[in-house]
Amino acid sequence: MNITLAKAEKAIAAAKQKAVAIDTKMNIAIVDGGANLVAFVRMDGAWLGSLDISIKKAKTARFFDMNTGIVGSLSQPGGSLYNIEHSNNGLITFPGGIPIKNAQGEIIGAIGVSGSSVENDHTVAEAGASTF
Amino acid sequence: MNITLAKAEKAIAAAKQKAVAIDTKMNIAIVDGGANLVAFVRMDGAWLGSLDISIKKAKTARFFDMNTGIVGSLSQPGGSLYNIEHSNNGLITFPGGIPIKNAQGEIIGAIGVSGSSVENDHTVAEAGASTF
Amino acid sequence: MNITLAKAEKAIAAAKQKAVAIDTKMNIAIVDGGANLVAFVRMDGAWLGSLDISIKKAKTARFFDMNTGIVGSLSQPGGSLYNIEHSNNGLITFPGGIPIKNAQGEIIGAIGVSGSSVENDHTVAEAGASTF
Amino acid sequence: MNITLAKAEKAIAAAKQKAVAIDTKMNIAIVDGGANLVAFVRMDGAWLGSLDISIKKAKTARFFDMNTGIVGSLSQPGGSLYNIEHSNNGLITFPGGIPIKNAQGEIIGAIGVSGSSVENDHTVAEAGASTF
Repeated sequence: MNITLAKAEKAIAAAKQKAVAIDTKMNIAIVDGGANLVAFVRMDGAWLGSLDISIKKAKTARFFDMNTGIVGSLSQPGGSLYNIEHSNNGLITFPGGIPIKNAQGEIIGAIGVSGSSVENDHTVAEAGASTF
Repeated sequence: MNITLAKAEKAIAAAKQKAVAIDTKMNIAIVDGGANLVAFVRMDGAWLGSLDISIKKAKTARFFDMNTGIVGSLSQPGGSLYNIEHSNNGLITFPGGIPIKNAQGEIIGAIGVSGSSVENDHTVAEAGASTF
Repeated sequence: MNITLAKAEKAIAAAKQKAVAIDTKMNIAIVDGGANLVAFVRMDGAWLGSLDISIKKAKTARFFDMNTGIVGSLSQPGGSLYNIEHSNNGLITFPGGIPIKNAQGEIIGAIGVSGSSVENDHTVAEAGASTF
Repeated sequence: MNITLAKAEKAIAAAKQKAVAIDTKMNIAIVDGGANLVAFVRMDGAWLGSLDISIKKAKTARFFDMNTGIVGSLSQPGGSLYNIEHSNNGLITFPGGIPIKNAQGEIIGAIGVSGSSVENDHTVAEAGASTF
């Protein structure tokens, strides 16, 4: 099972709506089960550096099938996964990446959002992921 | 002047419509005036390797403000731009990338399309670019 | 549908057997439907530089769902896909990469082989792909 | 002296058996004395992001001829090897990588394992390394 473009676009639309509702400008990326990009949008005026971060968040969430912030809680100095960010051509391990599951609970992709505080990034990613 | 996300999405919608009309499955990328990605979609079943190619075509078209195929005609063995593809982390110089201009004729971004023959790629890119 | 490790190992075993039969030493790589590595072996004494080539051949075959040599026939100077090798962090477009299909004809991965002449590479890849 | 493919495959088989015994899904990589990949397997359902990590763990263990976790204990903030992970195209310095020695105690390669807790990764790597 893999995410379809139609569903990815629905998730992006929901995420964009939430971004507007909380007055933020976001980069939003969706990857499929193979961690390859399916769809991406950068809202007008969103941070340029967040382009790559949103894609890396989506990939990171699919690489380890968990929210990116969980990886980050383990990659701190002294943590069991310290500096895991050096793998896979660069991970982003703070919040804003969430795996996407189908109705059967199977992971079919992931969403990554970047452009504001990590709390806001996570909120917008959640809005996108919850359309499934 | 820079392309807006709303216009990029309009261009992608037009390109997708053309892709369906000619029975192809495309990767479609739009970059802004800074050659940075604004929007991207991969149609279901489109070649995975064309993901990167569509983005590189869009960037190449904006890097040199011309259709990618024109760059390619100059980068052949013996040509004046031989192996220019080694620059900028990799160019793609066959057809499918087209600069996008506003009503005043100013370049505000570019579209890159990949997933079929280069003729079809160019046709779909043209459908997207002509929405401006 | 994605290739399983058990099937990938069966394909590698068949490819190794063929490599021995024709007196060659090969690098053999299998990727899944997402073009991510599933299994790899380097036979004793095989060219070290063929390690990366075998993986890139497998990825290239999955990226475009065709034998790598077909891509190469289109990427020659003057060809429609000239210098496509600059995409996707480097393609290898001479023979030795073949898509792998399941019984229903769906592509579930690819095999890449490198270590001898491209004819021999293709023969060994074929031995692996034909186990499906 | 260098590890042979036959011995690498024996080590991978032992590591896989241990991975199954402790109910984990692992990526397992073996490199030779030159830190170049000899064999690799990704068990069905193993984390995709652990593919690269397992290879980097094996390379790191051979680069410095010690368990990866020892490098990690020196690369913490304030440590003598702080941020050594930036070298060699990315190291992984938490447990799961172990040098492989022959009967004479000479290092002939290394194994890297990733896919579960670092304790489990190390346990599975140990199962592979102890076949020598």
